[in-house]
Amino acid sequence: MAELVGNVLVGQSGGPTAVINASIAGVVSEALNHECIEEIYGSLNGVLGILNEEFVDLASESQQTIRGLRHTPGAALGTCRYKLKKIQDFERVLEVFKAHNIRYFFYAGGNDSQDTADKISKLAQEQGYDLRVIGIPKTIDNDLPVTDHCPGYGSVIKYICTTVREVACDNEAMGQGDLVQIVEVMGRNAGWIAAGAALAKRRDHPHDPPHLIYLPEVAFTTEKFVADVQRVLKREKYCLIVVGEGLVDPDGNYISADDKTDAFGHAQLGGAAEYLQSLVEQNLPGVKARTVKLGMAQRAAAHAGSKADADEGFLAGQAAVKAAVLEAETDKMVTLVRGDTDHYSCETGLAPLADIANGVKKLPREWINEDGVSMSHQFVRYAQPLIQGETAVPHENGLPVYAKLDKVRVDKLLTPYEV
Amino acid sequence: MAELVGNVLVGQSGGPTAVINASIAGVVSEALNHECIEEIYGSLNGVLGILNEEFVDLASESQQTIRGLRHTPGAALGTCRYKLKKIQDFERVLEVFKAHNIRYFFYAGGNDSQDTADKISKLAQEQGYDLRVIGIPKTIDNDLPVTDHCPGYGSVIKYICTTVREVACDNEAMGQGDLVQIVEVMGRNAGWIAAGAALAKRRDHPHDPPHLIYLPEVAFTTEKFVADVQRVLKREKYCLIVVGEGLVDPDGNYISADDKTDAFGHAQLGGAAEYLQSLVEQNLPGVKARTVKLGMAQRAAAHAGSKADADEGFLAGQAAVKAAVLEAETDKMVTLVRGDTDHYSCETGLAPLADIANGVKKLPREWINEDGVSMSHQFVRYAQPLIQGETAVPHENGLPVYAKLDKVRVDKLLTPYEV
Repeated sequence: MAELVGNVLVGQSGGPTAVINASIAGVVSEALNHECIEEIYGSLNGVLGILNEEFVDLASESQQTIRGLRHTPGAALGTCRYKLKKIQDFERVLEVFKAHNIRYFFYAGGNDSQDTADKISKLAQEQGYDLRVIGIPKTIDNDLPVTDHCPGYGSVIKYICTTVREVACDNEAMGQGDLVQIVEVMGRNAGWIAAGAALAKRRDHPHDPPHLIYLPEVAFTTEKFVADVQRVLKREKYCLIVVGEGLVDPDGNYISADDKTDAFGHAQLGGAAEYLQSLVEQNLPGVKARTVKLGMAQRAAAHAGSKADADEGFLAGQAAVKAAVLEAETDKMVTLVRGDTDHYSCETGLAPLADIANGVKKLPREWINEDGVSMSHQFVRYAQPLIQGETAVPHENGLPVYAKLDKVRVDKLLTPYEV
Repeated sequence: MAELVGNVLVGQSGGPTAVINASIAGVVSEALNHECIEEIYGSLNGVLGILNEEFVDLASESQQTIRGLRHTPGAALGTCRYKLKKIQDFERVLEVFKAHNIRYFFYAGGNDSQDTADKISKLAQEQGYDLRVIGIPKTIDNDLPVTDHCPGYGSVIKYICTTVREVACDNEAMGQGDLVQIVEVMGRNAGWIAAGAALAKRRDHPHDPPHLIYLPEVAFTTEKFVADVQRVLKREKYCLIVVGEGLVDPDGNYISADDKTDAFGHAQLGGAAEYLQSLVEQNLPGVKARTVKLGMAQRAAAHAGSKADADEGFLAGQAAVKAAVLEAETDKMVTLVRGDTDHYSCETGLAPLADIANGVKKLPREWINEDGVSMSHQFVRYAQPLIQGETAVPHENGLPVYAKLDKVRVDKLLTPYEV
């Protein structure tokens, strides 16, 4: 196998997670092992940084900083939601790659990012430019196909379960059969995140909180919701609900209008949690409803992160470099592959980028119990290993300390490009 | 000094905190040291449990459970917001105390609870019933007078600062001068909690997030708010705001209506965060605003709790017992007293319950900077020691494990009372 000598470029895209930086740490750590790799660059704000030739020298960062990335949330290189569309954009990417002798491109992101990586890879092949492109999975949404699960998912659900357990302690002290607590979590199109809250229940305690989980996969009706809450409040002092932000009615319309107006044209400021709160107040006199909206805090909560997740994020970054350098692979994404024994183990595999770019992994309908508001044992068996272990975040002066890149700029070599 | 032989009763009242259970652990641990104490009872749901004679035997709980209370959020005995009003209520309390030979009553709570304790103590004195009543401070609001600070406050602000630091990592990756993040925290009448977010800034980094803190102490106007946000967005990629739930306009009216209607009679579902979000969207075209509402999660977040706070909560419980047993004190609340050297230290003192019940400690106006949206060095020096150290919460299967009381009931001796 011909050794490909040149530089590495790594970038991050889409919404940050608690562990996408761990993947960058994995790329940098592994890249240092290979002599064919001369420089290790990071692109600022994903593909935008490529178009604008905004690269930083990752090899010059201190080892302490790279190690710190293993527990630092956000996306240290910056991210973007910019989509390469025009053919000129793609040609600019290759022009920049050639100018900087980029021979290895690693891109951490979700479906759209893998699609972008795929197109860059294919154009390079067409032009006969020797480039190895490997995608690194990243998304709290856990909806990438082929891979068993996605780095970022384990940490978000671990944090949500921690929150559920703690809010439950509070609510149990306060409730007298008259308290509804609604915790709104992310996940507009799939219920993976809300479903993960089911892990907060202790084994063999089906009545533990969360008492009700509302998922986008199950059509929502007010009648069933009110009946669900009443059933729980008969049994418990309080009713703890976890709701994904993207609830839909039986016709498939979002129940909490995103366009900021309700059916009557009035401004409606709230989301799913406020909507459920209003239903409680309208339909269950004397019952108090309180809301928690974790918002972006949930995908950044590295202080309560899963060690398994952070380690797998790092592993995925390492695996990307190994596949490109040692196996001369390109146009693939790293996947996480679960061992088939009862004892959880996780290795990496590879799948064609095109397979990732065009697919979505749905929450299996059979993992949702018939009551529509709780998860089956199969789901718990799937998700439980992903939250194991606690990330060791260093604290200073009482607060977690997160790594910041020095971001030593790489000289630009080309004329500016109009994005 | 005459030794007073009899039983202990301890209760919890008001909103739970991350460390009110630590105070109960302190009471139980210390009470076991004194032979004059025969039984250690807990009252379920504060004074309601007294009226209804619902006591549990705390001495029969395992040592493991009592130790677990030191890091368990919520209020393990249950709490209440019931206010004793009628003279019959107070007489019932004494009747129950006499029936169970309660000679030591410890009550953990805020102003109202200390007021209740005061009245019970005074009635006992009037009736010549030998009873020692000591209050234990508890409130995330940090608004009790006399005491330097309140158990519960350090943990809530540590969690908020952790969240601010993490959300900032996320926002910095996403923002391009067009992102406003609003984190809504508790504190309807005083800004202590929102002010605490200032500790998230690194020393000598005044431009660190949170960029803007809105407090109930500073009259809110849309004009200043929009100018504040514009100023930050010129300098930073994003603007991170922390807002207390109880913002008021220059006339002293809450700006986010609690009565669920806006000035036009339209339903308004949101709180302070949603209100600021709507102001951004109306006044700053092209700028995205996102919200996090920590709700009850913030006062229950023991997994990110302050060790200093939990230790002081425990200490306050111990001190209450010591004062009553060893010093024959009554009608007092334990206070936290800060040492007067530069190196932080904390001891306990005592103050008359009446002084606590009728006072409120306001956030000093001179601790708020002239810009109205940041805190002075004096505030930081005051609050910094309160978030030091990390509570060691045991984890099992990836999640924190919290103690639950067995709640072995004490036999009722009286006829039921109509509450």
